Amino acid sequence: MFGMPRERVLTPLRWSDTDAYGHVNNVLFLRLLEEARVQVLSDQVGAGAETPATALLVARSEIEYLEPMLFRVAPVAVDLWVTRIGAADFDMGYQVLDGTPEVGTGQVYAQAETVLVGFYPLAGWPRRISAPERKRLEAWRDEPVRWRRRRSHPRSR
Amino acid sequence: MFGMPRERVLTPLRWSDTDAYGHVNNVLFLRLLEEARVQVLSDQVGAGAETPATALLVARSEIEYLEPMLFRVAPVAVDLWVTRIGAADFDMGYQVLDGTPEVGTGQVYAQAETVLVGFYPLAGWPRRISAPERKRLEAWRDEPVRWRRRRSHPRSR
Amino acid sequence: MFGMPRERVLTPLRWSDTDAYGHVNNVLFLRLLEEARVQVLSDQVGAGAETPATALLVARSEIEYLEPMLFRVAPVAVDLWVTRIGAADFDMGYQVLDGTPEVGTGQVYAQAETVLVGFYPLAGWPRRISAPERKRLEAWRDEPVRWRRRRSHPRSR
Amino acid sequence: MFGMPRERVLTPLRWSDTDAYGHVNNVLFLRLLEEARVQVLSDQVGAGAETPATALLVARSEIEYLEPMLFRVAPVAVDLWVTRIGAADFDMGYQVLDGTPEVGTGQVYAQAETVLVGFYPLAGWPRRISAPERKRLEAWRDEPVRWRRRRSHPRSR
Repeated sequence: MFGMPRERVLTPLRWSDTDAYGHVNNVLFLRLLEEARVQVLSDQVGAGAETPATALLVARSEIEYLEPMLFRVAPVAVDLWVTRIGAADFDMGYQVLDGTPEVGTGQVYAQAETVLVGFYPLAGWPRRISAPERKRLEAWRDEPVRWRRRRSHPRSR
Repeated sequence: MFGMPRERVLTPLRWSDTDAYGHVNNVLFLRLLEEARVQVLSDQVGAGAETPATALLVARSEIEYLEPMLFRVAPVAVDLWVTRIGAADFDMGYQVLDGTPEVGTGQVYAQAETVLVGFYPLAGWPRRISAPERKRLEAWRDEPVRWRRRRSHPRSR
Repeated sequence: MFGMPRERVLTPLRWSDTDAYGHVNNVLFLRLLEEARVQVLSDQVGAGAETPATALLVARSEIEYLEPMLFRVAPVAVDLWVTRIGAADFDMGYQVLDGTPEVGTGQVYAQAETVLVGFYPLAGWPRRISAPERKRLEAWRDEPVRWRRRRSHPRSR
Repeated sequence: MFGMPRERVLTPLRWSDTDAYGHVNNVLFLRLLEEARVQVLSDQVGAGAETPATALLVARSEIEYLEPMLFRVAPVAVDLWVTRIGAADFDMGYQVLDGTPEVGTGQVYAQAETVLVGFYPLAGWPRRISAPERKRLEAWRDEPVRWRRRRSHPRSR
């Protein structure tokens, strides 16, 4: 069923996230995704709580801005789910939306996807995703992001 | 000829752009692109110097991180060019690379593309790209970004 | 009685607030104070909820860092109170501390004071603090900050 | 002679440093000071170029905002000098001003002072300032900051 395994993180905005128009700045959306991901992954993938995000690098980000988001005191919701699992990397999908109680309702302000690569922090080497990690990621898997604005550019040969 | 009409902006890093590994944080790359774009567009597209970026919204961003970038005192180079021109929007391509004197040389750390939509700041309405703007954008046009990490996801119907 | 009229705001940290040592960056403490102030003042001083902070400029900031603060998922507490009320400005005191339920307990990480000047946003002119505003500020008044690290420098003549 | 040993760092603003009024945000001024300090200290005090600022913690900051600073493409100047040298810490004074060629001319937007404490990064222990460091700091010493807005609050007993 659509939307079942998604994780929702409620994230407060900061006044300083807004630009000269009172809109949340487009770059800051990526920051919101990062904060939500750090919070969820420190539980889900077993990164130590004291060093969240230490085992993952972002290799690619794609984001569509669907509606301008004005500053509000109430937190916004970020829904996160896994869209692909590789040998040493996986993809996460995101939606930034109104922090209403049910998943899948509310205005969607942006949707995004990031490619995350596991690595050994000290050595800097990529590492394979372990079997227990894969199991947790599989349980969290959902549909790919349905892009609305993407064009099919020629790919590098 | 490849690379001819690209604009190059030299952008200093900030110590605070780096994360716990001494790498420039992935979100901050988008900030560097934004700064380079504001600097170039305030000349190119005729936005008033005192209110750069006021006439453009980012509707979509895509970025590939190719090599980790460590903090350095010397500025990095951001190359910018136009990859598509629509009726009320256009696409810009970017490369973040070592700030060497010639375009096209030097380590490439990231490449990106953004969809930019013109609008009337006060009304918030989209606006068409004018004939003089189109002419300047055409002169600045170059090849689309050659993605290395993009996958062809199903598109929304 | 000490500590009575202080306002407490619970503020979540962001992973990106930390520096290369995993400490919350010293500059970001000022950001936390600003966020707490915007949240409280939009209620207390009657700035419109949709345009928080629009009627106040920071004319001076002073902050002492007492203990390094590591990233944690739980929000930190910012206590805010008024330490002086002038004709067109007032001073606020702050403590950043562990978000425990009672005011005055918990590790104090930093204490600070800012001078805030009222002004007319459109004209940019300073404005007097109105009688109703003064009344609300008076009810919120508490002791001045007890500096631990301040030296008595010669003042400008 | 006044102003002789000051160091000047030219620092470009970022469009994202500005707030909803087009002014450089008050918190960002501290960021500008930090960037200038990292750049100068990596030469002056011998912190390795690849790990600037690693040996110093900010224990206290004080800043006065004298004039609002609007975004401009040209870099602003930050003047830095030493105002006090202790056993394990020292104070730095700062002025943020127009990036004109001569020290001491140009509009001053802000002045500030920070207390900086030397420490061993890995152990986290404070360390004494070495004799060669002291010699370099002495050569860089100038008058204390002449505060314009400071009040003489009661100090903690």
